[in-house]
Amino acid sequence: MSLRYAVVGTGALGGFYGGMLAKSRQDVHFLLNSDYQQVKEHGLLVESVLGDFVLKPINAYSTTTEMPKADVVLVCLKTTNNYLLKELLYPIMHEDTIVILIQNGLGVEQQAADGLPGVQIAGALAFICSNKVGPGHIHHLDLGRLTIGAYNLENPSLLEQVSADFNEAGVPCLVTDDLDQARWQKLVWNVPFNGLTVVLNATTDQIMANEESSKLAHEMMYEVVDAANACGVPLKREFADKMMAVTAKMTPYAPSMKLDYDHKRPMEIDAIYSQPIAHAVKNGFKMAKVEMLEKQLHFYNSMNLKYTV
Amino acid sequence: MSLRYAVVGTGALGGFYGGMLAKSRQDVHFLLNSDYQQVKEHGLLVESVLGDFVLKPINAYSTTTEMPKADVVLVCLKTTNNYLLKELLYPIMHEDTIVILIQNGLGVEQQAADGLPGVQIAGALAFICSNKVGPGHIHHLDLGRLTIGAYNLENPSLLEQVSADFNEAGVPCLVTDDLDQARWQKLVWNVPFNGLTVVLNATTDQIMANEESSKLAHEMMYEVVDAANACGVPLKREFADKMMAVTAKMTPYAPSMKLDYDHKRPMEIDAIYSQPIAHAVKNGFKMAKVEMLEKQLHFYNSMNLKYTV
Repeated sequence: MSLRYAVVGTGALGGFYGGMLAKSRQDVHFLLNSDYQQVKEHGLLVESVLGDFVLKPINAYSTTTEMPKADVVLVCLKTTNNYLLKELLYPIMHEDTIVILIQNGLGVEQQAADGLPGVQIAGALAFICSNKVGPGHIHHLDLGRLTIGAYNLENPSLLEQVSADFNEAGVPCLVTDDLDQARWQKLVWNVPFNGLTVVLNATTDQIMANEESSKLAHEMMYEVVDAANACGVPLKREFADKMMAVTAKMTPYAPSMKLDYDHKRPMEIDAIYSQPIAHAVKNGFKMAKVEMLEKQLHFYNSMNLKYTV
Repeated sequence: MSLRYAVVGTGALGGFYGGMLAKSRQDVHFLLNSDYQQVKEHGLLVESVLGDFVLKPINAYSTTTEMPKADVVLVCLKTTNNYLLKELLYPIMHEDTIVILIQNGLGVEQQAADGLPGVQIAGALAFICSNKVGPGHIHHLDLGRLTIGAYNLENPSLLEQVSADFNEAGVPCLVTDDLDQARWQKLVWNVPFNGLTVVLNATTDQIMANEESSKLAHEMMYEVVDAANACGVPLKREFADKMMAVTAKMTPYAPSMKLDYDHKRPMEIDAIYSQPIAHAVKNGFKMAKVEMLEKQLHFYNSMNLKYTV
């Protein structure tokens, strides 16, 4: 039995991952917001290091009330929009639908589960450099790997089929039985680079090229590793060293938080900073540098949104 | 016997303090650099909350080789220009000349003494909001108090006469017998606000108005207080609380480091950050947040000067 997918949020992530599945002849239905007309008329354009493609025709919708019920919902919204989930998801869910949150940060499954009682939830981490560069226009620059893990699934083995679908579509996808560890691993990179690119007004390569800022990023990675261990999630400092080496070789990149800031959108401070900080504090560990960056980001966020809200 | 003063560096500080002394009929000689022609022709304009005035005629020079020898040299350069001191000072010094460094940061007297063997040195802290807003044009916005202390003077009582001259000129001036404590006290304010106004691209009032950034500034003040104590300089956390309260009521202000950054001049990272950090580390104390800010400032500095050096 093949799965029907719904992509909620067809941006940098949803456009790429849903697009790859659809290109691979999976049954995929896309929810769009401001780009709906463009995509309906001209299709979805994915410029990818794996090869460019246009999805046309495409199952595009401007509201979930018109979408068919899905077996798997890929939530590709920013966590700052998760307050919309309840309204968006119920129309497309049947009894066995699973919701996969492809989102950064910590605690997102629990928050979603609290707001969607009875819903089966999984989480996913995307290791990808991808941006939306225009309406219905995705630019996939580098990487793409997914790590998926169950949160409260009745039948976690369903994730194996999702993983197989992604792998068949050319997206390396791994199922983990420790979603928490996967989230902390991702935070090792996200915590320094999402925030520092905003506060230093820089791209990853500029931060890496400067001795002081790359040392700072490295130290912050260690703080995240130490916090993970304090929370009972085993991570080694060598993993941080490896992430630094990966970043040094990476295509110059503005992470999602930097783009959010530049486009005057709210930043995911809660999921990427406040939640990990709170988890660490609850376990007796203080991430001093991360806390400082969080405060700086709050300042930037408030100045940024001052004249737009 | 009245003293002859030389002002080396006629900017925001030198223009105001030298100007006040000259207005008070002291014998003051000003070294100017780029503003020399303007000041020679039109005098020095000081717009001050204490009352505006123009010094004209004025003893203005473009080089110290043409200046008379002085009893007291007021060094009002940025510490980043202290490498010029040796060349600038010798022509205007007699046997008993004292050099007062009106400069921020820590370790400046020692560095100057190392470079000027045999010279008698004192230090001073200026509690003032003052900017140079144009050639030969000083804008004094708030405060103005000076604290002066001996470093290696043969006759420290000479500072009493200097202090009396300033007080007579309308500048509250105090002589301290603990210059180190005075420097650490000043750092309590300078460390958070000089750096944060750069890294957050903000004025003091904006930082104070935001809950997260004002908390960060307050925490950094505590780090400085704790570092001072680790270095054997008794300071109380209540002093930091008082500084925060003062800042909350202060005229919105861009500190000198912010102006240096905005004008693409090198920032005083060494004197205000690296020196205090090194002193603290030597005494077993780590200022985690201050170290992070120092690294961020190094990054800003390097990007800022990249295309100008």
